[in-house]
Amino acid sequence: MPPIDAAKLTADLIRCPSVTPEEGGALQLLETLLSGAGFACTRVDRGGVANLFARWGDKGHARTFGFNGHTDVVPVGDAAAWTQPPFCAVEVDGVLYGRGATDMKSGVAAFAAAAVDFVTDTPPEGAVILAITGDEEGDAVDGTVALLDYMDREGEAMSACLVGEPTCPERMGDMIKIGRRGSLSAWFTVTGVQGHSAYPHRARNPLPAMVRLMDRLASHELDRGTDHFDASTLAVVTVDTGNPATNVIPAECRGTVNIRFNDTHSGASLSAWLEEEAARVAEAFGVKIEVKIKISGEAFLTPPGALSDLVAKAVEAETGVIPELSTTGGTSDARFVKSHCPVVEFGLVGKTMHQVDENVPVAQIHQLKAIYSRILRDYFA
Amino acid sequence: MPPIDAAKLTADLIRCPSVTPEEGGALQLLETLLSGAGFACTRVDRGGVANLFARWGDKGHARTFGFNGHTDVVPVGDAAAWTQPPFCAVEVDGVLYGRGATDMKSGVAAFAAAAVDFVTDTPPEGAVILAITGDEEGDAVDGTVALLDYMDREGEAMSACLVGEPTCPERMGDMIKIGRRGSLSAWFTVTGVQGHSAYPHRARNPLPAMVRLMDRLASHELDRGTDHFDASTLAVVTVDTGNPATNVIPAECRGTVNIRFNDTHSGASLSAWLEEEAARVAEAFGVKIEVKIKISGEAFLTPPGALSDLVAKAVEAETGVIPELSTTGGTSDARFVKSHCPVVEFGLVGKTMHQVDENVPVAQIHQLKAIYSRILRDYFA
Repeated sequence: MPPIDAAKLTADLIRCPSVTPEEGGALQLLETLLSGAGFACTRVDRGGVANLFARWGDKGHARTFGFNGHTDVVPVGDAAAWTQPPFCAVEVDGVLYGRGATDMKSGVAAFAAAAVDFVTDTPPEGAVILAITGDEEGDAVDGTVALLDYMDREGEAMSACLVGEPTCPERMGDMIKIGRRGSLSAWFTVTGVQGHSAYPHRARNPLPAMVRLMDRLASHELDRGTDHFDASTLAVVTVDTGNPATNVIPAECRGTVNIRFNDTHSGASLSAWLEEEAARVAEAFGVKIEVKIKISGEAFLTPPGALSDLVAKAVEAETGVIPELSTTGGTSDARFVKSHCPVVEFGLVGKTMHQVDENVPVAQIHQLKAIYSRILRDYFA
Repeated sequence: MPPIDAAKLTADLIRCPSVTPEEGGALQLLETLLSGAGFACTRVDRGGVANLFARWGDKGHARTFGFNGHTDVVPVGDAAAWTQPPFCAVEVDGVLYGRGATDMKSGVAAFAAAAVDFVTDTPPEGAVILAITGDEEGDAVDGTVALLDYMDREGEAMSACLVGEPTCPERMGDMIKIGRRGSLSAWFTVTGVQGHSAYPHRARNPLPAMVRLMDRLASHELDRGTDHFDASTLAVVTVDTGNPATNVIPAECRGTVNIRFNDTHSGASLSAWLEEEAARVAEAFGVKIEVKIKISGEAFLTPPGALSDLVAKAVEAETGVIPELSTTGGTSDARFVKSHCPVVEFGLVGKTMHQVDENVPVAQIHQLKAIYSRILRDYFA
């Protein structure tokens, strides 16, 4: 079997219009390729989305390296604004254009190509798993979670996992993500008693309670950061009342905060803190404060160690760049994998992701495949 | 000349549809009556509104008692909701219905009737001035102010003045107003730099500054009240941002406060305080805070003394009720007169003012005329 051309595979995947939740032929294409190379493939579809589980080697082997990624893409957006058709994978001057070019059909193509070549050329003592979902850009409830549920059920396990999302902010190799902050939003509604501004003692103004509560929350130092995380942050994102009359004290106002938190906290510990602060202010001001909280993701960290060293060395060897180990940025499916095994994220430069004319330099795809190949070699060495 | 029937005069005035700024025939009616009784009448019209200045006796006499009031009325509102036509002065069971029945055609009729009878029956050593405006319910910039400007220009002066607005909260005679609180509104706009909630250090959130500023203002004790005034109050009436996205830090938010203040403060002193607080918070948070202030009226007080004693004694003699000397409630034209001479306000029960089916018991109009008559007799005794 000749080496797999990761750039050509990326182009083939781009031509599958797999906007979430459409499979678009992308997972089918991968299944054909991987089956042909001796991977045991299982479609783990759930809730209307398609997922592909592929394993080379023995089930439950103590040395099992996993890759995780997704083939679904975000919508095209303003189709007329694209200079190249978004699902045709047109290459211009060594740059490949199309939806998913960076996020993350190139990542999936690179690790699939690396894995196929590796098991073909130098069959390892161990196993390689590819867990590829068609639901990362959507609700993500039936994607990687469904794959992990399936693995638990079937006794499948990974010893370590690399998520192939774009992670590099400026140039190839400059960042590995070893964790992510958690995210939580809280909506507060303060209810008092309406009245006339001239007679505030006859009313119960919800606003002094709201501004006191928001001031307390915004001024509170959640932490000072940890070795691997920036300090957690709380942003008051809106306070609204909608009262046009200066002679009227309103009955109600609403405020919202968003917290990005490190592993000093959990969604539950922050929820308890928010509820407690609201209750304290409610009592002090004699108003009612309702709190609604949504935890979008918990903070997690794979502490620097064997896995991050492995990836960092491969990155440096192939690019000459020493990658930063970071926990910045939004959330990813690594938040699910982290309960399963050590996980890090490494992929190419993500600058054009989700944008019009999303594109990737072809050379970067080859470089990414080379890095993933070296990771496999070193892991099983 | 037979005694003037104040109730009939009220009814005649109600039949003049003098919704601000329409004169509606009301001032014309009064001018005819007063001229006939020997008053020197001058129409002091300005800026599209009509005003009537009337003096009996010598110009500039050291003993000149003045009455101030208005013939303009607020709009009818929901005309279909009235059980009696608003400009027909229908009397049902001793109650006279119509727009202006309490606010304040009855008051104008009562003091005009009292003044005419008094100068006719017992011509005093001194002068009586009636300063009646057609612009109290509107912007009030060309009403009593125009009359006072005219008086200054012409060397006309009052030694004391009674404003005939409704002042009694529950029953006839229960309250004389000897001052009013001032009112001021301030609009704050805090401008920062928009950004992503996950990276607050790259944005500059205006909300923490806004809630800190509002908390500082709302928690500040302006004063503890004075002998004659309640404590000044500040109400935060609205804070608005309009940001629907929890992952976005907004660029701007707006907040408004309304202050009702006693004579410990002035509009200028409060404006300076608000500007200073805003500047302090703006500096601390590195944001821009714009402040727009509107002073609707300054606080004023005619300290209890000769004038309030005179009025209180007359009220008690005619009603048996000992009036409270109060500074509560909204603003009135007394805020202009106070720079001219000692001023108090006394009139009937104002419960139905500005409402549908505004009405006044006929007996109350006669009682009010009797009180005003006694005030004149006692003043010139």
